[in-house]
Amino acid sequence: MPTNTQILLDHRPTDKVSPANFRIVETPVPTPGPGQVLVRHSFLSLDPYMRGRLSDAKSYAKPQEIGAVMGGGTVGVVEASNNPRFKLGDAVVGMGGWQRYSVSDGGSLRVVDAKTIPIQAYLGPVGMPGVTAWYGLNKIIAPKPNETVLVSAATGAVGSVVGQLAKVAGARTVGIAGGSQKCAYAVRELGYDACVDHKSLRFGEDLKDALLSGVDGLFENVGGEPFRLAMRRINDFARVAVCGLIASYESEPTPPPDMRLFLVKRFKMEGFIVSDHVDLWPKALGELAGLVAAKKLIWRETIRDGLESAPQALVDLLHGQNFGKMLVRVD
Amino acid sequence: MPTNTQILLDHRPTDKVSPANFRIVETPVPTPGPGQVLVRHSFLSLDPYMRGRLSDAKSYAKPQEIGAVMGGGTVGVVEASNNPRFKLGDAVVGMGGWQRYSVSDGGSLRVVDAKTIPIQAYLGPVGMPGVTAWYGLNKIIAPKPNETVLVSAATGAVGSVVGQLAKVAGARTVGIAGGSQKCAYAVRELGYDACVDHKSLRFGEDLKDALLSGVDGLFENVGGEPFRLAMRRINDFARVAVCGLIASYESEPTPPPDMRLFLVKRFKMEGFIVSDHVDLWPKALGELAGLVAAKKLIWRETIRDGLESAPQALVDLLHGQNFGKMLVRVD
Repeated sequence: MPTNTQILLDHRPTDKVSPANFRIVETPVPTPGPGQVLVRHSFLSLDPYMRGRLSDAKSYAKPQEIGAVMGGGTVGVVEASNNPRFKLGDAVVGMGGWQRYSVSDGGSLRVVDAKTIPIQAYLGPVGMPGVTAWYGLNKIIAPKPNETVLVSAATGAVGSVVGQLAKVAGARTVGIAGGSQKCAYAVRELGYDACVDHKSLRFGEDLKDALLSGVDGLFENVGGEPFRLAMRRINDFARVAVCGLIASYESEPTPPPDMRLFLVKRFKMEGFIVSDHVDLWPKALGELAGLVAAKKLIWRETIRDGLESAPQALVDLLHGQNFGKMLVRVD
Repeated sequence: MPTNTQILLDHRPTDKVSPANFRIVETPVPTPGPGQVLVRHSFLSLDPYMRGRLSDAKSYAKPQEIGAVMGGGTVGVVEASNNPRFKLGDAVVGMGGWQRYSVSDGGSLRVVDAKTIPIQAYLGPVGMPGVTAWYGLNKIIAPKPNETVLVSAATGAVGSVVGQLAKVAGARTVGIAGGSQKCAYAVRELGYDACVDHKSLRFGEDLKDALLSGVDGLFENVGGEPFRLAMRRINDFARVAVCGLIASYESEPTPPPDMRLFLVKRFKMEGFIVSDHVDLWPKALGELAGLVAAKKLIWRETIRDGLESAPQALVDLLHGQNFGKMLVRVD
């Protein structure tokens, strides 16, 4: 009889998260009840927001429950269905969590076309990270042609889409990424006009050089010192979309800009979370899928094999060890 | 032969501005040349932005030139005109500066109706402060019915208009003002649902009590510690319009919110300056004049007599010694 491998949150991290915060259990594969559907997962999505859910600090999302299966995005295939919306073999995207199988009423499952686009893309450019990029860029930054858009974590699951969408919109794009390999990819493959390596000793100078015409739109995924330096180049009427502050999730708080700067530069700073805007997902996903089909939107993945690699994959994601979308392939 | 009394910036303040930073000179009344118009001023407008112009720090506005007539808004009457747009006796609003007479080509002068509305109102609710209130409230905060809008300097030239416009829009309005007299006026005359005295020892508790349902819109004129406390009550999806930070112009910088709060609360903070939005002035002024005519928009003034009182009036304004719009009546 097959078992369901599950990864539970064992205890909350007090400082940095480690695999020891989780434990693995084997349970019987659940049987779907009336109206329910059983999904066998193909990939788990690893995302920076997960770090926040491991803490019990008051936030926008409920903290991850201790002793429960760690939550997270999944793609998989329907193995059994008592729900007329799903049939055997359907490819589905949902929030199945860190386990091999999930059973649900299908309310948060969406059937996807895994023939023209690889199934794991629904956890990346045509999934939550893609819509995140789409929302922050189009609804907060709204770049005009020839404006400069700066993107931190420029090659990540979200940033790589932001850079490409901003280019399509006619903006000049500047990325910040960790390492020369990521920066080379950003310019050569993703089409950034420039990319600055935040691990370089010349980072401050390089950033200044890349931003001689200032920053009109800033899509912030990282925070920390690079954010502080970027704010020094902010232009009048700039728009700053605060999507994430991964540099601060396990480290020093990100230094906020001087309040006076808001007056001097008349800029806007806005935090957002893509799950607040479900009404726009169909439109965004449609546009993103169209760009992928037209080969105008590319992406790259770091895939870890085996469900049990998920905790370490999360740790590595938080330390920028991924190159593109971080995924776990469930065997 | 009548002379033109003028107040010049003598030297920049190094710390707090004082009347000693200015000097008074008597010059001949200028004769308007071809296409020019001579205005005798009735009132000078004193406004917080003037403090910024006294410094030579890089800002949105050019610093006030040393040895030149101190700039500022004025209303007055046309005494001589070689410009077909203006005739003798026209009431006009403009940027005549701290002097009894100004001569100009009329490019920044606007003829106003001083019969149905007192002329100095064009320096207040139907002038720059009114449009400032209108822009920040309607274009940044955009309050929905029953949302809570918090206004600092709630009885000032800008804040008093914000509070009344927000009430018209169906919002619950909470003011912050300095002293029980201003707070009583805010509630009884301006229609605020509550007003909290920042000079009270109970300020922190009182503010918390007045904001039990949080803050959906914050119109910030002041900054400082009240701003920090207000940010602790910010609601999801709040809008913060940063109009001024008068508490910091001669004192400690205003503490900015934690960057993480932008993510947790998904709020927006935007600085603005009304002179960037000249396209909207006619619409805003039309609405404001309509509300004044319908007695739905009231205001109050602190009037100092005599041109030479302008420097001290500015100092007093910066220390909250005004009650409503600060004006100098030119004799």
